[in-house]
Amino acid sequence: MEEGLVVCRANHVPLTPLSFLERAAFVYPKRIALIHGNISYSWQELHGRCLNLASALSQLGVSPGHIVAAVVPNVPALYELHFSVPMAGAVLSALNTQLDASTLAQILQQLEAKVIFVYSDFIELVLQALIILQEKDEPYLVVLIHDSTNNVKEPPASSATPKILDYQTLLEMGQPNFKIVYPKNEFDPISINFTSGSTGKPKGVVYSHRAAYLNAIADIFRYEMWKSPVFLWTVDMFRCNGWCLPWTVAALGGSNICLREINGKEILESIYLHNVTHFCGAPMILTKIADAIGTNQPLLPHEVSVTVAGVLPPPEILTKLEELGFNINNAYGMSEALGPVISMPRKFQDNSDEEANVKIREGIHNIMMEEVDVKDPESMKSVPADGKTTGEIMFRGNAMMLGYLKDPSRTEEAFEGGWYRTKDLGIKYPDGYIKLKDRAIDIIKSGGKIISTLEIEGVLIRHPMVLEAAVVARPDDVLGETPCAFVKLKQGCFATDEEIIKFCEDWLQDYMVPQAVIFGDLPLNSSGKIQKFILRDKAKELKCLPL
Amino acid sequence: MEEGLVVCRANHVPLTPLSFLERAAFVYPKRIALIHGNISYSWQELHGRCLNLASALSQLGVSPGHIVAAVVPNVPALYELHFSVPMAGAVLSALNTQLDASTLAQILQQLEAKVIFVYSDFIELVLQALIILQEKDEPYLVVLIHDSTNNVKEPPASSATPKILDYQTLLEMGQPNFKIVYPKNEFDPISINFTSGSTGKPKGVVYSHRAAYLNAIADIFRYEMWKSPVFLWTVDMFRCNGWCLPWTVAALGGSNICLREINGKEILESIYLHNVTHFCGAPMILTKIADAIGTNQPLLPHEVSVTVAGVLPPPEILTKLEELGFNINNAYGMSEALGPVISMPRKFQDNSDEEANVKIREGIHNIMMEEVDVKDPESMKSVPADGKTTGEIMFRGNAMMLGYLKDPSRTEEAFEGGWYRTKDLGIKYPDGYIKLKDRAIDIIKSGGKIISTLEIEGVLIRHPMVLEAAVVARPDDVLGETPCAFVKLKQGCFATDEEIIKFCEDWLQDYMVPQAVIFGDLPLNSSGKIQKFILRDKAKELKCLPL
Repeated sequence: MEEGLVVCRANHVPLTPLSFLERAAFVYPKRIALIHGNISYSWQELHGRCLNLASALSQLGVSPGHIVAAVVPNVPALYELHFSVPMAGAVLSALNTQLDASTLAQILQQLEAKVIFVYSDFIELVLQALIILQEKDEPYLVVLIHDSTNNVKEPPASSATPKILDYQTLLEMGQPNFKIVYPKNEFDPISINFTSGSTGKPKGVVYSHRAAYLNAIADIFRYEMWKSPVFLWTVDMFRCNGWCLPWTVAALGGSNICLREINGKEILESIYLHNVTHFCGAPMILTKIADAIGTNQPLLPHEVSVTVAGVLPPPEILTKLEELGFNINNAYGMSEALGPVISMPRKFQDNSDEEANVKIREGIHNIMMEEVDVKDPESMKSVPADGKTTGEIMFRGNAMMLGYLKDPSRTEEAFEGGWYRTKDLGIKYPDGYIKLKDRAIDIIKSGGKIISTLEIEGVLIRHPMVLEAAVVARPDDVLGETPCAFVKLKQGCFATDEEIIKFCEDWLQDYMVPQAVIFGDLPLNSSGKIQKFILRDKAKELKCLPL
Repeated sequence: MEEGLVVCRANHVPLTPLSFLERAAFVYPKRIALIHGNISYSWQELHGRCLNLASALSQLGVSPGHIVAAVVPNVPALYELHFSVPMAGAVLSALNTQLDASTLAQILQQLEAKVIFVYSDFIELVLQALIILQEKDEPYLVVLIHDSTNNVKEPPASSATPKILDYQTLLEMGQPNFKIVYPKNEFDPISINFTSGSTGKPKGVVYSHRAAYLNAIADIFRYEMWKSPVFLWTVDMFRCNGWCLPWTVAALGGSNICLREINGKEILESIYLHNVTHFCGAPMILTKIADAIGTNQPLLPHEVSVTVAGVLPPPEILTKLEELGFNINNAYGMSEALGPVISMPRKFQDNSDEEANVKIREGIHNIMMEEVDVKDPESMKSVPADGKTTGEIMFRGNAMMLGYLKDPSRTEEAFEGGWYRTKDLGIKYPDGYIKLKDRAIDIIKSGGKIISTLEIEGVLIRHPMVLEAAVVARPDDVLGETPCAFVKLKQGCFATDEEIIKFCEDWLQDYMVPQAVIFGDLPLNSSGKIQKFILRDKAKELKCLPL
């Protein structure tokens, strides 16, 4: 540093999303921060609750660097934990509520969390997990959250194992004048999010205060979530910390709307009732909403922006939603990059016939993700921007994890060469935009050829009878693998496998045409993502299926 | 850092506003970036020009850490220098075009800049300064910028001293495939802005890439400058780097409108012509616009946001502008904090009779300025939030200078105790909002009492005949100092000193009433700020003025 220049406490404050809540409580004290059923908190009230909770956590011995786990759906308490846990200097790990007890036990062991916040619906699951863990030292402290908009569900009487405290009791223990434990370094961890674990042991992805702060700001650009948004919580807060949106909404002094149940009817009703401006999630929410649209459904009071990550449902569903006033955006990202990295209005994706089967042609990259590229994973050279050459999609930027918890070798592998390696395959167009060809794990290798399952799905979904489609590899003695299609038909529709295969033949090159079609419901995870690993198992079993 | 967590090239990219231009060129290649007269560049074109210029600077030997000076008004070249100089790894120092040759010489000596960009109107000034400098070693390189919207003005033939190169020639020297020299550390300097120097030697205030980046983002919140703004350049880019707005507009992919001349007529015409959404500057621009409003002036096509830093003109001028569609905001800040720190819509300032003389009651603090407080400068304790107790306004946050160039003792003094000390006096209200009482240097000490000149000016400006007013201390043998008012009357208006004093007596306590009133034009600096140091000198001379 040159003469006269310094970096000190006056001109360097570690970046942390905690600043956003402080500011919201100061600048917008009376504005509605959060609504859930009949409950409504202003920013001042919410700030007070978070301070109380942080104070109570400190009293319980939660200290800087400790991990606090949560098995909680999108209720206000989980929103509050996004601030109060880091306010106590601790690290929040919000866990998927759909985990089975043994996976949950495995994760809890990895976390070494001593405090677990549990929503009443999941108390039995957590107690089962704790029994599996059979931890002997200090007992776990479980904080039980009752949904105040529903009937109270008491924990089972048999739950003698851990110490159980009530969320409300904890809140009342706290002191409102608690002094926030700000991070000493902006690279200190703020949260841990687990990947789905469908490809092995769940990985704990660690976010820093800095990354969370910058990605929360990037969300403003990404979702065009400008002044005072009214945000509807359809994306799980336990997924990438709800794409960092709990922090974004606080930065903007917007309002959060939590739902009792995430179904099409509730979503639609909330939009009209609360003047919702934005919501996000898995593509399935679009289908749910479309199903709930009535015959004389009134137009939305204003354009409502919805961003979904994953393969879009059939065009007629999208059109139905757009006609009502929804602005549909499609995003691509991953836990490691704090959620969506690049996104695009769906209208921009579909603007030429040539690209009729383009599913995700993303491009408006995150303002905090400095570089997005498609590279040869060996040479690390960019692929030619020719719209043909396949490479691995890679990123580098500040909206990026610190690494995998207690897994240095996987962290090193992920960041090898100074770029985050997505393992996803893509191509690059002359204008610099990239197209996701497929997730590396989903790729089908057939007779020496590489087949993108996304491309086949893009054709299937255009068949007039098809509602949802997924393609996976089926082992084949001759070709190695062949495409196997799983298809869910629209209600009241019928189709045969020959018809579906014929349709594919009209649109795809021969080697890409599915060799088998299986009809039925597709297995979805809690965020509506199709669980391809289940389908792959099924396809293996069906190896002998007659063509 | 815990096991498995790393900070590396993949997840840590030094924050720099250069990223904004890269992204704008990628995401909005064809969108208009900048308009000046008949010239118009898209983001792609502007990006290309900046790359060329950075490349040419490198060829000239400009290297990381070097300082490049500019004596240039708000023409496209100065916008380009905000990107191209740091792209070459160098530090931009945009200097006030209103400086006299000897002050300019003093600053150039301090900077040790070897390249100076000069607008043709100021070439004689710069050559004079260089003669004063009489530098002997390497000659300066002067890059001459001609206003392409005007007639070319050649440099005087006598200018043999420095090497002179043409801006256009330099651009053509550059290579468009230049590899940007990104900062190694986000705390590396990006620019140096000089304070007015009215209180002594001009101070070079150094900004880091990080502070510039974060403050450019904060500008989005501060000016509610959301999606695709059309920004009119009325604030000087050589003042706090135009409040960091060159970088903000790039971050948003907005459009910049440069004016040939900053007068009311040009401003109004540009607003209608280009659909301007935002502009900023000194309060005098409001008066200039009000004067230019015609009798049948059409309403603005949409609300236009204007933010001014300093004392607002009389209410009828504000009302006239608001009726046309302007949304007027008032801000308070300083060079050290990269421009405005806190700002507020003027409507919020004036909402009670009690506070009729409140001039700046600011509060919506910068999202990047973590703490804003009024403290006792000795004990560093916050003053009671009672709306009465005076203390020093202090800040700490990321939108803050690195320090004063080559002046460690002043830097240390400014950041003493871990806060930036503004030297401005303020009070704090129970709701946490602060009110600026006065700049410390302007305070009048009269008979053991402290008088705020802002409060007296707040009364004077409400007199129906008064257009502008400034109050300074006049030496007094008995009381030490007494208030002395300088008043500019509205056109066609007449008033006597007795009338003005009588009016003040109706509104102010006795000891605050000006003891002398002087009529005439007030001396303004180039940004429209009243030059109180000139008035103080005049007041001293007038010590014997009869009361």
